[in-house]
Amino acid sequence: MNSQLQQVRIVLIGTTHPGNIGAAARALKTMGQTQLYLVDPKIYPSAEATARATGADDILANAIVCDDIKQAIKDCELVIATTARKRSLPWPVVTPRQCAEKVYESQSINAAILFGRESSGLSNEELELSNMMLQIPANPEYSSLNLAAAVQIICYELKMQSYIVPEIEHRDNETELVTYEKMEMLYEHLADTMQQQGFLDINNPGRLMHRMRRLFNRARVEEAEWSILRGFLASIQKKNKD
Amino acid sequence: MNSQLQQVRIVLIGTTHPGNIGAAARALKTMGQTQLYLVDPKIYPSAEATARATGADDILANAIVCDDIKQAIKDCELVIATTARKRSLPWPVVTPRQCAEKVYESQSINAAILFGRESSGLSNEELELSNMMLQIPANPEYSSLNLAAAVQIICYELKMQSYIVPEIEHRDNETELVTYEKMEMLYEHLADTMQQQGFLDINNPGRLMHRMRRLFNRARVEEAEWSILRGFLASIQKKNKD
Repeated sequence: MNSQLQQVRIVLIGTTHPGNIGAAARALKTMGQTQLYLVDPKIYPSAEATARATGADDILANAIVCDDIKQAIKDCELVIATTARKRSLPWPVVTPRQCAEKVYESQSINAAILFGRESSGLSNEELELSNMMLQIPANPEYSSLNLAAAVQIICYELKMQSYIVPEIEHRDNETELVTYEKMEMLYEHLADTMQQQGFLDINNPGRLMHRMRRLFNRARVEEAEWSILRGFLASIQKKNKD
Repeated sequence: MNSQLQQVRIVLIGTTHPGNIGAAARALKTMGQTQLYLVDPKIYPSAEATARATGADDILANAIVCDDIKQAIKDCELVIATTARKRSLPWPVVTPRQCAEKVYESQSINAAILFGRESSGLSNEELELSNMMLQIPANPEYSSLNLAAAVQIICYELKMQSYIVPEIEHRDNETELVTYEKMEMLYEHLADTMQQQGFLDINNPGRLMHRMRRLFNRARVEEAEWSILRGFLASIQKKNKD
C-alpha cells in the first residue's frame, strides 16, 4: 500500500466507550493503517479496548493520546471531519471514496480524519478546524453507524485508493481450457448420442443443440470436464449398441 | 436505493458471538438492507445481540433463522461467499465493489452473500454452493476483520452501487460568488493600497500580484467576503490620507 495513504491520522474525539477504541484499532490494522490519535477519551487505557482490538494491540500501544484536538492536528495540511448529519455550515462535503481521492491527490504528509463522539459527533467549533466534511452515504431513516464501523469503511476506501484490483480469477493458472476443435468434437458426440437415444430428431432439431452450445461455451469447459463428458457419452452409446 | 439491491440476503453462518449478530443487524440497517438470515447461530436470540443492534431491532426481529445453509439459499440465483484466506478452489474471486456490481448486473431477485464463522470462516462444502468468492482487500499481515465490520463494508458497497454521488458542495445554494469584474476591482484596489503602503513597487512588481490573484481565484470569493476585503483596503487608504 501507498505509504502516504497509510500515514493518515485517524483521530477519535471524546470517545465514550473504550470497546469502540479497540474495535477502531482493529479496523485500522486490517486496512494497513497505523496512526491512531485519541483526543480526550473518556476511559483509556482500558481492558475492554484491548480485548476488542484482538490482534491490533500494537496500534493501541502506539496510539497518541492528546488533551485537545488542536494538539492532534497542529502539523496537518489536510483535515477532514466526519459527520452523520447535514450541517448548516457551508463546507465542502465528500463521500468516503472522494475523501480517499482527496487525501491521495493532496499528497499531504500529514492528513487527519476526525471522528466525533458516539452520541453527539463533532461540535461546530471542531468542524470549523477542518478543510472539508465527510459523510458516509446511509439510510436516511437510520444513519447511525457504530464508530468503529465508520472507521472501517473509511480505512477500507483509503486501502482501495491504491489497491490494484486483480482481474477476476476464474480458475487456477494450471487449469487447461478446451480448444474450439475439441468443443466441436464434443458437440458432435453429444448430437450423435442424443439422436441415437431418440431425444434429438436430426430432421427437426429445433434449438436444442444451440442451447447446449450456449451453455457449454458460457462455462468454458476444462480438459478434465471434457474427458468426463466424452466418457459419459461414450458409455451411453456403448449401452445403446449392446 | 434500488430495491433489488436492498433485497440481497446477508447470510451469517454458525456465528459464535451474539454481539456480532446484533452489530451486523445495525450495519445492514444503516445501509438500507433488510434481509438478515442466520444459519445455525450458536446463541440466539440473545440480549447481547439486541443490545448491539441499537436501533436496528426490527432487522433482528425479522431475521430468518435456518438450520442449514441450503434452506437459506434454495431460491437464490446468485450466491457469493466471503472468504478471508486464499483458497485452493479455482473459483472466481471478486472485491466488495465488484460483488456489488455483479449483484446489480445479475438482476437477481434473490442474491445471497454468505459470511462464515468468526474462527474458521466457511467450509469448502459451503464455498462450493456459491457462484463466486468475495475477498475484502486487507493488510496481508493482519486480514482478520470483525464479522460485523465485513458486513458493514459489503453493505456499504451495495449502497454505493446505486448512490448518486452529489457534486462536492462547497457552499450554500444561496451563497453568491463574486463576478470577474468585481474581482478585477478588488485586485486593482489591492495593488493601489499596497503601492501606497510602499509594499508594492509598481515599476518592479515581481510576482506579488500574480500570487494574490492565484490565491483569491482558487478560493472563489463570495460577496460578503469581497465586501470585507474592500472595506479593509478602504480603511487602510483612508488612514494613509489622514
